[in-house]
Amino acid sequence: MPLTLYQASVPVFTRGFNNLAAVLEKARAHAEANNIDLATYVNARLAPDMYPLTGQIQGASDAAKFGIARLGGVTPPSMADTETTLEELQARIANTIAFISTVSEAQINASEGGTITLKIRGKEMSFPSEPYLLNFVMPNFYFHVTTAYAILRNQGVPLGKMDFLGSFN
Amino acid sequence: MPLTLYQASVPVFTRGFNNLAAVLEKARAHAEANNIDLATYVNARLAPDMYPLTGQIQGASDAAKFGIARLGGVTPPSMADTETTLEELQARIANTIAFISTVSEAQINASEGGTITLKIRGKEMSFPSEPYLLNFVMPNFYFHVTTAYAILRNQGVPLGKMDFLGSFN
Repeated sequence: MPLTLYQASVPVFTRGFNNLAAVLEKARAHAEANNIDLATYVNARLAPDMYPLTGQIQGASDAAKFGIARLGGVTPPSMADTETTLEELQARIANTIAFISTVSEAQINASEGGTITLKIRGKEMSFPSEPYLLNFVMPNFYFHVTTAYAILRNQGVPLGKMDFLGSFN
Repeated sequence: MPLTLYQASVPVFTRGFNNLAAVLEKARAHAEANNIDLATYVNARLAPDMYPLTGQIQGASDAAKFGIARLGGVTPPSMADTETTLEELQARIANTIAFISTVSEAQINASEGGTITLKIRGKEMSFPSEPYLLNFVMPNFYFHVTTAYAILRNQGVPLGKMDFLGSFN
């Protein structure tokens, strides 16, 4: 059986967000145990012109949210990018998982062979659904979840790659 | 048409590696223009117990190489992890692209519905081919290419997310 667009998207994002939520919880626990102000992590970034942790998590959320909305032909919920605390970032992740879980397998798979049109940096672009997911949405999603993890590692949070990959039981 | 395992793997890796090679070339040009020793970038890391740029690129190579070898049922070429220069890292990328391009669409797709067995941290694990690709190989690959990019951004190389995503013409 080949992969459906659904299999290659919703469960992959859900798994990635659950792993990310566990990574954030480890950061919270580490900060608490070491009297580190959590705001330090929330506002940390790897370069002056890169987004901090907040923006990385908003970016991962947007990648999944808009990706699934466009593939499923539904309107994505507005999310205001106003998170300033780790708790709010966890809520953003939970809300994103909740939204993508409302889009059915049939809705996503109906997009197979279809065309997605969007604006990238002000330029309108059309993609067949499959390269849209594989070459745009998925690398965008992983870019932001990996950068979130990397920011926390750079801040000294004790994490390993298995935290990023999640469990395989 | 659903996605084949081949569509979701070989061309995705090839695109990611080509984007990574272009990112490394920008790093080389930036170092040259600013009299920065390239070894600084090659050995840079985001945390004392994370791999430096070399290890990230070796990790991306291994993710794709072993992933495609296992899915395609072929023996992967040995790569010794001895790279110490940007040129050697570029060669590693080129060799990895060359290897994965030798595995045919039919070989990869023959793995659909099959089982992949591998050791993770000394523990033998079996996966159906599809979650093996989606939940293990792909996040592993993006973890390393994103971290390579993040290391260079952290070192001040002028890059943007479109360098990571590549062009969509």
